[in-house]
Amino acid sequence: MRENDLLHWLTHSTRPDAAVPVPIGDDMAAVAIPPHAAAGLALLKIDQALDGVHFNLATCGPAAAGRKAVNRCLSDCAAMAAAPAAIMVSVALPAHMPLAAAQALLTACRNAAAEFNCPLVGGDTAIWQQPLVITVSALGFATQRPVQRRGAQLADAIVVSGKLGGSILGRHLTFTPRIKLASLLQTIAPVHSMMDLSDGLAADLPRLAEASGLGAIVDEAKLPVHPDAIQLAKQDGRSPAQHALCDGEDYELLFTLSPHGAAQLPTHLADVPLTIIGEMTRPPELYVRSPDGMLQPWPVGGFEHRGTAP
Amino acid sequence: MRENDLLHWLTHSTRPDAAVPVPIGDDMAAVAIPPHAAAGLALLKIDQALDGVHFNLATCGPAAAGRKAVNRCLSDCAAMAAAPAAIMVSVALPAHMPLAAAQALLTACRNAAAEFNCPLVGGDTAIWQQPLVITVSALGFATQRPVQRRGAQLADAIVVSGKLGGSILGRHLTFTPRIKLASLLQTIAPVHSMMDLSDGLAADLPRLAEASGLGAIVDEAKLPVHPDAIQLAKQDGRSPAQHALCDGEDYELLFTLSPHGAAQLPTHLADVPLTIIGEMTRPPELYVRSPDGMLQPWPVGGFEHRGTAP
Repeated sequence: MRENDLLHWLTHSTRPDAAVPVPIGDDMAAVAIPPHAAAGLALLKIDQALDGVHFNLATCGPAAAGRKAVNRCLSDCAAMAAAPAAIMVSVALPAHMPLAAAQALLTACRNAAAEFNCPLVGGDTAIWQQPLVITVSALGFATQRPVQRRGAQLADAIVVSGKLGGSILGRHLTFTPRIKLASLLQTIAPVHSMMDLSDGLAADLPRLAEASGLGAIVDEAKLPVHPDAIQLAKQDGRSPAQHALCDGEDYELLFTLSPHGAAQLPTHLADVPLTIIGEMTRPPELYVRSPDGMLQPWPVGGFEHRGTAP
Repeated sequence: MRENDLLHWLTHSTRPDAAVPVPIGDDMAAVAIPPHAAAGLALLKIDQALDGVHFNLATCGPAAAGRKAVNRCLSDCAAMAAAPAAIMVSVALPAHMPLAAAQALLTACRNAAAEFNCPLVGGDTAIWQQPLVITVSALGFATQRPVQRRGAQLADAIVVSGKLGGSILGRHLTFTPRIKLASLLQTIAPVHSMMDLSDGLAADLPRLAEASGLGAIVDEAKLPVHPDAIQLAKQDGRSPAQHALCDGEDYELLFTLSPHGAAQLPTHLADVPLTIIGEMTRPPELYVRSPDGMLQPWPVGGFEHRGTAP
């Protein structure tokens, strides 16, 4: 395979799109800025997925790797309540990878974005003697001012979408970015702060709390535990709740809103369960409330990639 | 070094910028869309630089690698006559790299962009057991409709900036993206088509010609040969003109405009020489005119990275 072969295929297999007046194949792509771009803001993200760290190419294959790389980035669009307007994908391909595998990878990237009407507008390909690297960049626009991590208010309810824990059993490859959910949330009640759960609740909630200058209490009994967390708990002896708190790569939404706003929330939105798990507090310390009502210290750590993808 | 240490440093060492209402550190950054964004277009690019392919970390060091990675991307902004509004940098760091080296890399990235008043608004860091990968994404806006490759017209003069060839001797690390030059060009005469020379004139001009449905004749005697090309020619026996035609990574501008427009061009603009090297022709075939006036076949190939950076 030569770099130019793949780039040529990518350029010529891209369908014309009125929102992309200059498509992939020029020095830069040009994307139309929609009239609804709130406050004249362009939202940007870059995110990488590495073989042996974020996925294992030998077991998951190129299509699953590409899909995950794109969806990780789109999950950040959801976290800002933004609609993705364009993605770009850069790949460093191992020299032994067949052209068909690289095409499967990029097709999966394009299809993952297309699920949200988001075009692939840029690509860079290089070939090297090392493992696969996929880097994805996204441009998004919000119809309202984007929801940041820092906006949580005292006494806000803390809510998570979906069910947590055990994503390593497979969901870390197959999750759906909560873009539709995030856009619907805005129509129900003002969301004060939001982020996506990529490193696990134990690591991510402290970031939201710190950005907002607040603390938090999470009720262990309220945690929406995923069946995968229960299955994993049987294997390793940790509790399902520990998995729900500490496992990474849920790619669910974590957000806060007023208690009044929280009362308006349905139990499901866009077919995704919503669960109130706690409240924002002051001083800025975090606790888990155990089922007996006692405040326990916040679990240390959470998830950080260490180069040992399954 | 841990991923979070570097990300924390990057977030907290970024200065506030009114053009970046949501800076690095949230799920996405928000960049203000300037009122002059022509035709409501956002311009996007992604580009990677790999250790052992685009640079050799052991010999050039992390700062030069970071600078090159950013400037490669900004060179594409120049090619579209766009002003860069934001860059993002994703790095996959070898596990043995000290935190200080990673900081030097990201500082060099930030400084390279700052030369064009362009903020670093996003970063992703991961640590793995493999060589360094730097991926840069740029957002730009054009004050006029962006200049594409496809706009060349029959009988257009073909112009290059700077001097060509032999960049492997060092300029491939130290070049300046021609952003200022590109913006000044627009004030002198309408530029019909433009791209940057990344793979060498022999590889890049055919792309511009094909996109425009035209051919081209380049006068060998008019090629602005860089002293590095002459030095390299002494070492390897190829001619200086061959190096000017076929060597990659000049990162100069290649553009076409009407003969009338070309007559308005100064010999230097923004301290960079401008040289008319040929003209666009029909049918769509390319030739080099040798000093004796004979049309020679276009050199095959040009430059493609093959994993052997010096």
